[in-house]
Amino acid sequence: MQLDKKSLSSYAAAERQNFENKLREFVEVPSVSADPSRKPDMRRMAELGAETIREFGGEPRIVDTAGHPLVIASFPGEKGAPTVTLYNHLDVQPASRETEPWKTEPFVFTKQGDRYFGRGTTDDKGPALTALWGIRAAREAGVKANVRILWELEEEIGSGNFESAIKGLDKEIATDSVIVSDTIWVSRKQPASPAGLRGLQGFELTLETGRTDQHSGVTGGAARNPLGELIKLVAEMYDATTGKVKIKGFYDDVVPPTKEELKEFANSGFEIKQFMKDHEFKSIRTDDAVDLMKRIWAMPTFEVHGVTGGYHGAGIKTVIPPRGSVKISTRLVPNQDPRKILKLVKEFVASRNPDVKVTSEASMWPYKAPTTGPYADAVRGAMKFAFGREPVFVREGGSIGAVVSMEKVLKAPVMFLGLSLPEHGYHAPNENYDWQQASGGMVAFAKYLEAIGSMSS
Amino acid sequence: MQLDKKSLSSYAAAERQNFENKLREFVEVPSVSADPSRKPDMRRMAELGAETIREFGGEPRIVDTAGHPLVIASFPGEKGAPTVTLYNHLDVQPASRETEPWKTEPFVFTKQGDRYFGRGTTDDKGPALTALWGIRAAREAGVKANVRILWELEEEIGSGNFESAIKGLDKEIATDSVIVSDTIWVSRKQPASPAGLRGLQGFELTLETGRTDQHSGVTGGAARNPLGELIKLVAEMYDATTGKVKIKGFYDDVVPPTKEELKEFANSGFEIKQFMKDHEFKSIRTDDAVDLMKRIWAMPTFEVHGVTGGYHGAGIKTVIPPRGSVKISTRLVPNQDPRKILKLVKEFVASRNPDVKVTSEASMWPYKAPTTGPYADAVRGAMKFAFGREPVFVREGGSIGAVVSMEKVLKAPVMFLGLSLPEHGYHAPNENYDWQQASGGMVAFAKYLEAIGSMSS
Repeated sequence: MQLDKKSLSSYAAAERQNFENKLREFVEVPSVSADPSRKPDMRRMAELGAETIREFGGEPRIVDTAGHPLVIASFPGEKGAPTVTLYNHLDVQPASRETEPWKTEPFVFTKQGDRYFGRGTTDDKGPALTALWGIRAAREAGVKANVRILWELEEEIGSGNFESAIKGLDKEIATDSVIVSDTIWVSRKQPASPAGLRGLQGFELTLETGRTDQHSGVTGGAARNPLGELIKLVAEMYDATTGKVKIKGFYDDVVPPTKEELKEFANSGFEIKQFMKDHEFKSIRTDDAVDLMKRIWAMPTFEVHGVTGGYHGAGIKTVIPPRGSVKISTRLVPNQDPRKILKLVKEFVASRNPDVKVTSEASMWPYKAPTTGPYADAVRGAMKFAFGREPVFVREGGSIGAVVSMEKVLKAPVMFLGLSLPEHGYHAPNENYDWQQASGGMVAFAKYLEAIGSMSS
Repeated sequence: MQLDKKSLSSYAAAERQNFENKLREFVEVPSVSADPSRKPDMRRMAELGAETIREFGGEPRIVDTAGHPLVIASFPGEKGAPTVTLYNHLDVQPASRETEPWKTEPFVFTKQGDRYFGRGTTDDKGPALTALWGIRAAREAGVKANVRILWELEEEIGSGNFESAIKGLDKEIATDSVIVSDTIWVSRKQPASPAGLRGLQGFELTLETGRTDQHSGVTGGAARNPLGELIKLVAEMYDATTGKVKIKGFYDDVVPPTKEELKEFANSGFEIKQFMKDHEFKSIRTDDAVDLMKRIWAMPTFEVHGVTGGYHGAGIKTVIPPRGSVKISTRLVPNQDPRKILKLVKEFVASRNPDVKVTSEASMWPYKAPTTGPYADAVRGAMKFAFGREPVFVREGGSIGAVVSMEKVLKAPVMFLGLSLPEHGYHAPNENYDWQQASGGMVAFAKYLEAIGSMSS
């Protein structure tokens, strides 16, 4: 096999049915890492991942962690050739047809023409398998690189055990570079690779003012209302209309995007109309495209994800609940420090309503990737070859805690070769992936590995 | 049978087992009017109510309404004697051992010494049956009054069909006065009767900014957050620390309690320490007893009962929800008008966040009862006879929509002979009633009917 356009296209076309069969198998294991009752499915997912790698000629191993397992694997190349590690994750977000508007069963793989529906199709099982088919093509073409795989099963819950697990693996996972396929293009027409990721600091505010529900007629006026007090506190923390955080010092360490970066943003193919359509918004906070990109890629956020406590059924139940909590997270940008943000939040809450408890949830550092040098050039070349256009280096608004951990533990640059599109419904109902991205992705990965193989190690 | 203390005490003691058996039957029908799936139980409850009245010599009839049925009944007395109607309700608040800290099954009658646990024991099945035993004693003693019963099954959901149903019954329920047993004393040591009830206006604020959950990394910063915007709006509507409503005009029609009333409040036996213990509060909004009573009886309130939308499970799920709602109610005092309050809320919301929809929930007028004249004197006499002390006339912080409807339709004064105590856990988990209040209540009702029977009609 040759790594020319024609051979790679024939290879992808011939493998389509196999790819779809395998993606079906992967999607139909409901590997929801957030759900404790899915523990057996997480194990099954790791085993299916390992078996699949073995079918492709790799040497897999399931590594137990304090949480869900990791799958690591090696495809030995030429001795002395550079080593590259492909990172993906096999766990998925929760999904429920009862509470969310899924048109198909989320854990049943449903093919509609070139599109594949199901939880995990685009995030991140489809890209994981795409990369695997890319590895096979590269190896069949005699690419020299030593290839490793690192498949995580806790990405969607903040990669809490990932860093300590890979620390313990030492030489078994030593690598010269890492390539991550878990990011989203700006538009189908324009390949994109992130030059940065946002970090995350989640927290929960909890207030308890009593023990049991109380009749609002009998005690209302004298009783404290924990929901009301939490609402007041959150309204003091940020202005939901603009999104502006009012906690002093919150923006101090933000490195705003450079003029050069804003120019790349403007050329990224981003369209407000398409963004609104893809995400099914009725209205948004800005009508300026570059301002919008700054907001989602390069500025921190503050989001309320849910308020617990009280009555959630039909109508109203006129009781005063004894406790409540608010689930909040902030996305962070370089050079914000999640520990400092958590400290600022805790101090703010203590100064406004000291009865409110703050607990820290998922915490991830922001990340800044190289946009020049041989690895960035290899990403540019592979994507241009596969998709016809050089990628723009933009930013990714999401957080991949594992990226920061890999950079730190493996001491290797972490690059991005993402394949997901805005219309794929990341973390949303009716998540999907498509054959155009899968087949192009196989080609891109084969070419990327070829470029790595020809580097001097 | 004589209506002296000794005869009535023996009567109550002899009937204790029968009373407990009947209360068990009533409590074990889960007549939760708010729950549409309980419709068959509501019918069963009405039938059990009617059967029980028939066992006591009354002539019951189940009246269908647009919602749950009513039970009406007549115990004919002497021709030309005054007619008195005893109002209670047989529907109950929702209860769940899974989500609330019930120590016993809420729909299993559990006797512990003199206390009876179960949903509806004190609100209002226990008082309904107590009144029925009072009727029997009065009739056995030859009291002349014509006695009617009006048992509602939609009190806990705002009595939405009550007024139109009783309008249609006309002469069948004509009465000279009404006595309601659905209120709470201030303390076990001091009988109390309300001279006023608060009204209610419930509403729900709903905001939809998209269609589906969105990844906060991908869209966060640009996406509107409906929970955040609702929180901002609610914080603009009231100050949860003090309870003060910030909507202009909200307090305009409030008639503050007179000096005389505040004096009765101060003599009511109310104790902050006991209030906090009874309702299991960790802290409350005031440490002044009279201020507290003003807050719960004589001033309007603003309460958040629940915030729907987003994620309510363990940890955080970092999505931006497409919609949310806040369930709110205000208790109103004489002379506030629920229609005016709803209008003020709607105007306020339209001026601050016009995308938010306001829907009206349960609506009830406040009520002011007579504290002088023959009916008030009859209440004073009956309670003093049964419990050893004259009642204080205070206020009831809760709302009984049916009271306002009865005053309006029956054109008769509505008095209160409540038997519940603060420690009975009205609308709360571990609701209970006790034999002391039940047996005393039987005596009080018998004496009240005697006093009515001797009035000239």
